[in-house]
Amino acid sequence: MEDITNVAKVPKGSFYNHFGSKEDLLLEVLGRYKAESPRAVLSDQSLSPLKRLKKYFEQFAQTFVERKCQRGCMFGNVAIEMADHSAAVQAYLANTFVGWAELIAGVIAEAQDQGELKTDEDPASLAGFLLSAWQGTLLRVRATRDPKLVKEFQRIAFGVLLI
Amino acid sequence: MEDITNVAKVPKGSFYNHFGSKEDLLLEVLGRYKAESPRAVLSDQSLSPLKRLKKYFEQFAQTFVERKCQRGCMFGNVAIEMADHSAAVQAYLANTFVGWAELIAGVIAEAQDQGELKTDEDPASLAGFLLSAWQGTLLRVRATRDPKLVKEFQRIAFGVLLI
Repeated sequence: MEDITNVAKVPKGSFYNHFGSKEDLLLEVLGRYKAESPRAVLSDQSLSPLKRLKKYFEQFAQTFVERKCQRGCMFGNVAIEMADHSAAVQAYLANTFVGWAELIAGVIAEAQDQGELKTDEDPASLAGFLLSAWQGTLLRVRATRDPKLVKEFQRIAFGVLLI
Repeated sequence: MEDITNVAKVPKGSFYNHFGSKEDLLLEVLGRYKAESPRAVLSDQSLSPLKRLKKYFEQFAQTFVERKCQRGCMFGNVAIEMADHSAAVQAYLANTFVGWAELIAGVIAEAQDQGELKTDEDPASLAGFLLSAWQGTLLRVRATRDPKLVKEFQRIAFGVLLI
């Protein structure tokens, strides 16, 4: 808290003039993180659905590797660190992860409709599994510091799961 | 620290008689967690390789859901919470996650050899992706509190990824 008020150059006691609680600050931070996400590419109509999906994970991966395979994804981090401890944060994350999987499922469904994917598996399940695999890849790369796992994710995601 | 010494009924100052550092305590806890893992089933020769793999994730999932979809996997949690902040913990986790993926890859290779799986995809990559998807599933279930995602994991893992 003191670090934050120091950086903001406001008196230590004034934090609660701006935020109702520490949770409120976290929800504000999560909202800003979401606004900066590369998800706009998922609705870029100049690209085919499958190309959008590939580009989305490439962009995400590039940012991650540039940060020395540290930090990961704020939503994943907060899910693990806070979901068990704050109902408000858990509710926010539930909404975020459900919406995220739906967004990806929509692109997969488009790719199926346009014949880019042969699989007739339920798009929602494929999207959920893909999102899980991505979050787990970030987690494993942070543990191992091995960025090759990002390539492994991309190869299996687009060579085995989504074909 | 005080919580721990209170539960252990030892004087607060005696912690460092037992552990060189807080990291040493964490490494001890991780070692005990590993010893309690259901991974023995992966080498149960009374089951076929594919059945071992399914049973392994079923057991893991059951424990998780019984704990109200909270707590997750200690290795995943510590990877996210500590890997960026402690070289000793990161090294321990690197070793753990590499060995874990190798163990699963061995079972997948056996299943391929015995004709239980048709895919000729590299077992190490399939194992890595599977482990990522599992860690990500735990993370997403903690965010959403939706245990159906565990069923989704099992269905796609053994109906699309490993066939």
